Amino acid sequence: MLPYKTLIQLNRDSNVSLYVQLGNAFIGLITNGTLQPNDALPSSRVLSELLGLNRNTVKLAYEELIIQDWVVSIERKGIFVSSKLPVVNRRRTNNTAEDSQKQVNSFSWHNPFEGQQETDDFQQSILTIDDGFPDVRLTPVDLLMREYRSIAKRMYGKNFLKYGFPKGSENLREALRRYLSDTRGLNIQPENILITKGSQMGIYLATQLLFRPNDKIAVGVSNYRSADEIFRYSGVNLLRIPVDSFGMDVDVLEDRLKREAIKAVYIIPHHHFPTTVTMSTDRRLKLLELARQYRFAIIEDDYDFDFHYSNKPYLPLASIDHNHNVIYIGSITKTFAPALRIGFLIAEPKFVDACSSLRQLIDKQGDSLLEEAFSSLYNNGEMERHFRKAIKIYQQRRNLFCEILNTDFKDILSFDTPEGGLAVWSLFDKRMDLRKLSQLALKKGLKIADGSFYENEMFKPNGLRMGFASLTEQEILKSLETLKKII
Amino acid sequence: MLPYKTLIQLNRDSNVSLYVQLGNAFIGLITNGTLQPNDALPSSRVLSELLGLNRNTVKLAYEELIIQDWVVSIERKGIFVSSKLPVVNRRRTNNTAEDSQKQVNSFSWHNPFEGQQETDDFQQSILTIDDGFPDVRLTPVDLLMREYRSIAKRMYGKNFLKYGFPKGSENLREALRRYLSDTRGLNIQPENILITKGSQMGIYLATQLLFRPNDKIAVGVSNYRSADEIFRYSGVNLLRIPVDSFGMDVDVLEDRLKREAIKAVYIIPHHHFPTTVTMSTDRRLKLLELARQYRFAIIEDDYDFDFHYSNKPYLPLASIDHNHNVIYIGSITKTFAPALRIGFLIAEPKFVDACSSLRQLIDKQGDSLLEEAFSSLYNNGEMERHFRKAIKIYQQRRNLFCEILNTDFKDILSFDTPEGGLAVWSLFDKRMDLRKLSQLALKKGLKIADGSFYENEMFKPNGLRMGFASLTEQEILKSLETLKKII
Repeated sequence: MLPYKTLIQLNRDSNVSLYVQLGNAFIGLITNGTLQPNDALPSSRVLSELLGLNRNTVKLAYEELIIQDWVVSIERKGIFVSSKLPVVNRRRTNNTAEDSQKQVNSFSWHNPFEGQQETDDFQQSILTIDDGFPDVRLTPVDLLMREYRSIAKRMYGKNFLKYGFPKGSENLREALRRYLSDTRGLNIQPENILITKGSQMGIYLATQLLFRPNDKIAVGVSNYRSADEIFRYSGVNLLRIPVDSFGMDVDVLEDRLKREAIKAVYIIPHHHFPTTVTMSTDRRLKLLELARQYRFAIIEDDYDFDFHYSNKPYLPLASIDHNHNVIYIGSITKTFAPALRIGFLIAEPKFVDACSSLRQLIDKQGDSLLEEAFSSLYNNGEMERHFRKAIKIYQQRRNLFCEILNTDFKDILSFDTPEGGLAVWSLFDKRMDLRKLSQLALKKGLKIADGSFYENEMFKPNGLRMGFASLTEQEILKSLETLKKII
Repeated sequence: MLPYKTLIQLNRDSNVSLYVQLGNAFIGLITNGTLQPNDALPSSRVLSELLGLNRNTVKLAYEELIIQDWVVSIERKGIFVSSKLPVVNRRRTNNTAEDSQKQVNSFSWHNPFEGQQETDDFQQSILTIDDGFPDVRLTPVDLLMREYRSIAKRMYGKNFLKYGFPKGSENLREALRRYLSDTRGLNIQPENILITKGSQMGIYLATQLLFRPNDKIAVGVSNYRSADEIFRYSGVNLLRIPVDSFGMDVDVLEDRLKREAIKAVYIIPHHHFPTTVTMSTDRRLKLLELARQYRFAIIEDDYDFDFHYSNKPYLPLASIDHNHNVIYIGSITKTFAPALRIGFLIAEPKFVDACSSLRQLIDKQGDSLLEEAFSSLYNNGEMERHFRKAIKIYQQRRNLFCEILNTDFKDILSFDTPEGGLAVWSLFDKRMDLRKLSQLALKKGLKIADGSFYENEMFKPNGLRMGFASLTEQEILKSLETLKKII
């Protein structure tokens, strides 16, 4: 008989019944080849004594094994491993990880993300100069909870918990239609709106639908890396166009268009990432005219529209595009909280329908509860009240942050005070090694990026986006003091 | 002067300041060609009188237009549309939808979802025999709300609102590791787990990573249509293998494997969709052996594991797979509520990492708040208490539902009482037109599908999945009575 006392380990504190555990243990012994077809199992009496179990427990386990065809019961002879099961080669019982690597014979696949770094942990409670994140401590969680409770009570038959619409809650689409019309002059209907999980999903969906492999997209020489990664993943070739202090250089783009077919242009018209420049009016109009002429799509990623301080935001290209060439993408995650992921994609109904179909393949639908809650927050004005409050605080923080940079860091970095957004694009003196700076800072209790996220094959600045919005004035003082000391 | 009183419509009830509205109106006139470069704007005095506005409002609007380079102010002459703007062809002002169709010159794209039907509205409050959905009225929303409040209070600095991990909350991954080990004998670590938004996302991610265009996947002759759609969207060719009452016929599969390369096999081992059959033990073992031999991946979609009535579920293939060929996909959405989308994908850490990278491109991360709440519900036992309670109720409903089918519908449909899951697979008499049935039922206040969702190019049953779980016993009586009358 096998050494069942060693082979079978049961956990008496588990939620799972002992007989299920025992059955599973036998299945393990059969599938790893310890027990072979036609092998006899010990009688319930013997096994129950051996393992200190009630005999009924063993009997129940055997019954379950019989029902599932692992074993057969032969009258007056006992219980045997089913002869119908395929023979499994006996495995060494205490194989090491290395052994198992050698033994396994698993499927092959190509990993497009080979060697990619693990994601950073942004939820740590350590003083951080981030990339331009909002301060979640300002997020009115109480209001959200109030809406949740109210929805849970209000909605008849808890319908909001059933399968919903891949395009998103109708209430939120109507609320957003009004909000986007009021703030951005967008002349749209709910059928132009797809609710997404942040602008990231908008870019992903549009990219998947716009391009075929080896199509070309024009992007900035400097560009939002996560967008570049989506384009690359989708097999699209990147054409990099210079970005100066008026945004993407559309004259250079025009030259390229004369020579080659470009399927789409990706722009961030407010506060280009990472350099925070805003595209000028004449370039916006020229880009629209080029789109009409050369029939390409403009993916307008306007994630930062809601964050403006002294001046007003420009109208999106989408609202002055009379040829329906603009796919407008925005987000509420930065204005509310990064983890509560709601964004939108605005386009012609046909394109929105296709994005919705794809979205349904990916994850069926968004978070109905959150979507309903956000629609209430828009409708009762709380969302805008929160924006206005947050903007005031961020403006003070920006002013303080830039003031200190101006006085204490003048010699080693240059920057323009951003008119909006949540970060300052800072170019450091060339002698400054940002990798070292980042490592040293961490030792002093300050987290700051090393700049590698902003680099690409054509853009190698010695620069950093320095987020001021998520730090209180005291934290700004402390973090910049720490940084000053290191430098 | 242009007829500004007609051209400019301001909304005094709007949240948007009048000067912003006025500025936007001028931008509209410029970009649609009504105002051309170098055209003069009316003086602030004239315009304010014409529109009945405070003169300062007009001045503010003009200032904003100057800042944004739409217009220039020339001293002692007035305000003019900037000469630097590209000339826009004058558009007819009251163009109809048809006109605008002709005029527009927009980008071209290929729509893979052309002609696809709109999604059904499952949130309607109408008596419905659905596809096998849970009863959301049983969902313990109060417990969820309690967890939300507790998390909102407990978490320091509201860290849960910051960007989180694309693999999902660490607490939930640990809770699921324990739960999956207890219930399914899965011997895994948190690094084997990716939290998804339901099993749909798991299938999408795995498919995107496993296949290259024109690779082949083996699926059932009858199969879950949403999975088929993901495979097709990803350019994968479907090889259909017969499914009988013991699940997929692995001998037929073996024959195909001898002749052609198959990259993966997709199975639903418990309650195959739509026919609800469970794969037998010997076929499970043989499939694993074939996977080892021919090195293909098994996508094991075990969405229905948690729903078993009289007997115990089989161990997943994933827990008896010693060659790491199984990608195990599951869901909590059916056990809790469809709209609260949480699922999991279990695989080797490298594959999980790649799925996580792709997931990050798609939507950055899941819903941290929901993930934290679910981890608490697992840890404090509430999740399992809810399961157990729901299962008991569903079993009663199944019994009643099948009893009525047996007595009142014997002549026109055949079915096997399902041992688990939330629906009965019913094959109707061939003379029965299910499209007509569905239409007639709707007129009598009963929603029931027409069966087309279950059909594909090789499978044309006259059948329906009839969901019993989301109906109370009274609703079961009422809905089947209605159905009986129609038939």
